[in-house]
Amino acid sequence: MFIGMSETMEPLKYIMKNFDYDGTLQLYIHKKSHLPTTMNFDHDRNTFILLDQRKLPYELVSWTTSNWKDAATVGIKEMVVRGSQAIGCAAAYCYLLASNSYEGSLKNYFDFMKSSYEFILNTRPTAVNLRWALDRMAFSVANSKNLVLEDIKEVVKKQADTIFLEDMCINTQMRENGLQFIENGDVIFTHCNAGSLATSYGGSSLSILTEAYNNGKDLTAIVKETRPRSQGYKLTMWELTRAGIPVIGVTDNMVSSSALKYRATKVFTGADRITKDGYVANKVGTHDLAIITNHFQLPFYVAASYSTLDFYTDGSSIPIEVRDCSEIYDPYSCEIYVKKQIGELSQNALDRWPPFGSTIHLYNPGFDVTPPSLIKKIILDVGVYNPFDLSSLSEDIVRSKVQDIIQRS
Amino acid sequence: MFIGMSETMEPLKYIMKNFDYDGTLQLYIHKKSHLPTTMNFDHDRNTFILLDQRKLPYELVSWTTSNWKDAATVGIKEMVVRGSQAIGCAAAYCYLLASNSYEGSLKNYFDFMKSSYEFILNTRPTAVNLRWALDRMAFSVANSKNLVLEDIKEVVKKQADTIFLEDMCINTQMRENGLQFIENGDVIFTHCNAGSLATSYGGSSLSILTEAYNNGKDLTAIVKETRPRSQGYKLTMWELTRAGIPVIGVTDNMVSSSALKYRATKVFTGADRITKDGYVANKVGTHDLAIITNHFQLPFYVAASYSTLDFYTDGSSIPIEVRDCSEIYDPYSCEIYVKKQIGELSQNALDRWPPFGSTIHLYNPGFDVTPPSLIKKIILDVGVYNPFDLSSLSEDIVRSKVQDIIQRS
Repeated sequence: MFIGMSETMEPLKYIMKNFDYDGTLQLYIHKKSHLPTTMNFDHDRNTFILLDQRKLPYELVSWTTSNWKDAATVGIKEMVVRGSQAIGCAAAYCYLLASNSYEGSLKNYFDFMKSSYEFILNTRPTAVNLRWALDRMAFSVANSKNLVLEDIKEVVKKQADTIFLEDMCINTQMRENGLQFIENGDVIFTHCNAGSLATSYGGSSLSILTEAYNNGKDLTAIVKETRPRSQGYKLTMWELTRAGIPVIGVTDNMVSSSALKYRATKVFTGADRITKDGYVANKVGTHDLAIITNHFQLPFYVAASYSTLDFYTDGSSIPIEVRDCSEIYDPYSCEIYVKKQIGELSQNALDRWPPFGSTIHLYNPGFDVTPPSLIKKIILDVGVYNPFDLSSLSEDIVRSKVQDIIQRS
Repeated sequence: MFIGMSETMEPLKYIMKNFDYDGTLQLYIHKKSHLPTTMNFDHDRNTFILLDQRKLPYELVSWTTSNWKDAATVGIKEMVVRGSQAIGCAAAYCYLLASNSYEGSLKNYFDFMKSSYEFILNTRPTAVNLRWALDRMAFSVANSKNLVLEDIKEVVKKQADTIFLEDMCINTQMRENGLQFIENGDVIFTHCNAGSLATSYGGSSLSILTEAYNNGKDLTAIVKETRPRSQGYKLTMWELTRAGIPVIGVTDNMVSSSALKYRATKVFTGADRITKDGYVANKVGTHDLAIITNHFQLPFYVAASYSTLDFYTDGSSIPIEVRDCSEIYDPYSCEIYVKKQIGELSQNALDRWPPFGSTIHLYNPGFDVTPPSLIKKIILDVGVYNPFDLSSLSEDIVRSKVQDIIQRS
């Protein structure tokens, strides 16, 4: 049972029946996939628990705090938690910790929560789901101005739990929508980590594989390293292996090689943003993977939550986030450090490559944009679409579909 | 002047006029490209000097030995030197060191050199050029049986220098054959390190870029990291930057991204083996790069020496060398080591990923095979070919073309 769950969440508690509570991790572990939820809130102790994804796959530990600023600056900004949906849920719980910490008068509560909102928002200002979750939390506070402080705090608590559990419901529906595309014997390319770890639990692309495998489908995953941050190598290999799925790990250079060697049958990736004209922005390398696998006539599936839909941008005008090049050179700095320690390099050797002041320019785009012509289907929680048919959707239609999913749950 | 060069090499010494001798490195540095030769043999001191490529790009040092077994086991096997043509030249000098070390009777010399041949050959048994160079050395010994020991040793010395300097001539011709394909303003993809560092000096694909740049062509290189061994990141970025060429470094996931961002114009790669039906085996990722860049309609050029031509295998039957997966996981072991030292991971964390006994299978093919349909031209020292026209060549034709090149030099 979900510790300290708000009473109004009773109808949703059935989801947690599929989980066991792990007292050491203080997280819930799914009975079949053996994957933990990425977070938990212990209302009895007022403690927020995050699966510490910085340490995966090398150790499985959680990180806990009761301090809302730590939750924001360490938990979200320093990426104990990552992945758009998970960040949204975590932001809601940061906001709850802030609310719970407040000990002043009712009058000043609203100003305090407004400054907390800004503080949490600024940890990762470009994360769309973070803003969305905080807006929803702030809205529930704004709608409770006629209540006493204790009751407002209770509203905040329920709203945070609702955001978390709604994410669980939505993910369940997305998995169900995707199951029809997995066949017995499939050998499936993945990219980056569009998985359970990026959501509350069991969301995004990889969870379709996990669910199909749990339902008895025989399948194998080919996991690309996904340099520079290696989320494929570190997170996806860990996630799929823990769920029992046979994994073949390759570097990003080995798509053709492994497609031919293992007779790959299809591709499943996630999405950071999906435009109405069917373009998919996702972790850099997705477009490369789509071109190569289309060359081999493999169907390319994108699976994501409705929250990645962008009705206001078209594929040609998606801004490309360029990230710090330390992501590229950090592993080489580690190598130099170790080689100096064991004497394979002299103390005079460079400490980083390229060296400071070098003319070498490293280019590190965070994602790329895959055109609809390379995509077979876009699998959303709100339905499955041909990428060219997304224009039939609107914000109102999506909102009503999401309500339906949650009410059915 | 080339230290202690055999007198018969006089006609080829003109090549060295383009170089300065670096007394610290004990290697020759090209006056325009600023790139060193990968090796040198000091006949006065009987010392073999190798550019220590294990330490590039972090420090530029050379490694020297007078011991023929060290030259074989450290120099070749532990990869102080790498790259097919360079390995051939290094094997010849190992053989020379062995010959020079011999102090017994003439009668036992031939047995000693036979066992040396086997020892050197076994350092990298699949390297075609190593066997080719050793066979040529052994042949010169077999043809000298009527001479006294001192004279036989002189024949061996001249033969080793000849192999080295012929490699220089051949490389010069390959560069000249490739120049016509470089235009002002080109933005050129590279892969792995098919460069001067893989030859005596100035050979293979990258040297065409260097030569064009030295001749005043304005160009930019996009250098792919080339995981798992990162020869692009470590060697090609170093080599091209040292030659003055502007370099953009990207991970292997960023081909589409950088092609679009920097308006790439063409691709230059090397080759490990070229079959008569126009298939090119090269460092893994070449096929991926060819598919993606063909999608963007960029011409794909392969440049290599005649020694990579294989007249006896067709594209569909090239055996794929699968290499040790430590090449994939080593950087993560370094990361773990450093993170444990600075306390970001506990001492209980795994020391490698995937852990010992894991069900995760890492696949690490050393190269892949690109079909002729994706290749615009194959640029060889012996001529420029459409990949479908290679069948017009035979071993005899190639041998006569090589003789022409060397005699013209």
